[in-house]
Amino acid sequence: MRLYIGNKNLSSWSMRAWLVCTAFDLPFEEVLVRFSGLDLAENTFTQTMQKLNGNGKVPALVHDDRVIWDSLAICEYLAELFPDQALWPEDRGLRARARSMSAEMHSSFVSLRSKCPMNITADLAHEGQALWSSSAELRQDVQRIEQIWAERPQLEGFLCGNFSIADAFYAPVVCRLKSYQLPVNSSSVQYMNTVLAHPAVQLWIQGAMAETTT
Amino acid sequence: MRLYIGNKNLSSWSMRAWLVCTAFDLPFEEVLVRFSGLDLAENTFTQTMQKLNGNGKVPALVHDDRVIWDSLAICEYLAELFPDQALWPEDRGLRARARSMSAEMHSSFVSLRSKCPMNITADLAHEGQALWSSSAELRQDVQRIEQIWAERPQLEGFLCGNFSIADAFYAPVVCRLKSYQLPVNSSSVQYMNTVLAHPAVQLWIQGAMAETTT
Ligand SMILES: N[C@@H](CCC(=O)N[C@@H](CS)C(=O)NCC(=O)O)C(=O)O
Ligand SMILES: N[C@@H](CCC(=O)N[C@@H](CS)C(=O)NCC(=O)O)C(=O)O
Repeated sequence: MRLYIGNKNLSSWSMRAWLVCTAFDLPFEEVLVRFSGLDLAENTFTQTMQKLNGNGKVPALVHDDRVIWDSLAICEYLAELFPDQALWPEDRGLRARARSMSAEMHSSFVSLRSKCPMNITADLAHEGQALWSSSAELRQDVQRIEQIWAERPQLEGFLCGNFSIADAFYAPVVCRLKSYQLPVNSSSVQYMNTVLAHPAVQLWIQGAMAETTT
Repeated sequence: MRLYIGNKNLSSWSMRAWLVCTAFDLPFEEVLVRFSGLDLAENTFTQTMQKLNGNGKVPALVHDDRVIWDSLAICEYLAELFPDQALWPEDRGLRARARSMSAEMHSSFVSLRSKCPMNITADLAHEGQALWSSSAELRQDVQRIEQIWAERPQLEGFLCGNFSIADAFYAPVVCRLKSYQLPVNSSSVQYMNTVLAHPAVQLWIQGAMAETTT
């Protein structure tokens, strides 16, 4: 099983799928395809990924000659492949909640995603402050995210009990809120710290730091 | 099982979940919550939907005291609840494809979605022509959609064999391409006709027409 990912510092969609593979200790090989220049002829990223899947994007999972090309579809595929691992919560109600918030993440928060691209190692507090005061949509996105997080079963826990795909989906949001230092309430800070302390998240962040210091 | 939906003429996300319920003849009760004015105090839509789920949007599914609030999460929930009905394709490879294209739909095509809001009964050929020549992103979105459609197993069939959640996810796109009369190739036209001829799609369109003539 091979997982194609982009730069760890930048690729928020890659991070989700990789975190699930790593947090659940799934047997996978990581293939890092670095984003390259805008010059299409020299763009090895686009060339590599286009050859693999028409979408031309990361992440992509290759397993048994199948190419699965979207982070949420990859996570569903893995959940099916490893049914004993509870990638989604085992309880049907919690699972439905986990899927609802993950699918909402997948389709929404356009303002946060476009205005605050992930850049794990950067200090973007200054940019964050300017964006926060100028964009009502950004504030609305963060408000909704805080509402979702606040409904987690235990203040010191993950979104739906144990670490699940839902937390992997919100981990890039945690990184954004941190880099841009957007103002969030104390319950959110506690959730962010829980996510940032997870071993898989730690490993990804170390990878991002290694990328940007070389 | 109650499915909350918005106006049939306008609500593309509602259409997906409703089509799955209807195409597979699932036992459900439809609750239509009409979009209402922009004045928040009088906005019965927002009031009704906020009471149900923090997201405040349609569609939402209520089953056994659970509220599932996103169209993709609703479809996954239904696929689990009715495992004998093949809401997703039975073959694992086809199912992974169906999920990849549905999740891509869920998270992408921002230009098509924002520039060409669904309006089933309207003739927007004029707007479509102007948008088509002015927006490279719109043309790119449609190009990628045509690429996905072109890879269906049979020219005269659905995206992954029989009608599945994937087709329900692309049905609002079919309606947009039709209303705005965006130029597509003959293979795409054939797929669009296949979707438009499906009894569940026909029923939804009839509902949209009834809404707009009264
Ligand atoms: N919905 C897709 C989005 C994938 C995506 O947009 N990936 C970005 C990197 S995070 C990418 O590959 N961009 C390169 C490009 O657009 O050429 C998913 O969840 O996998
Ligand atoms: N990702 C959500 C999107 C839901 C959505 O945006 N619904 C729109 C109608 S199609 C809505 O309820 N808008 C009302 C509002 O934003 O107040 C889903 O798939 O269910």
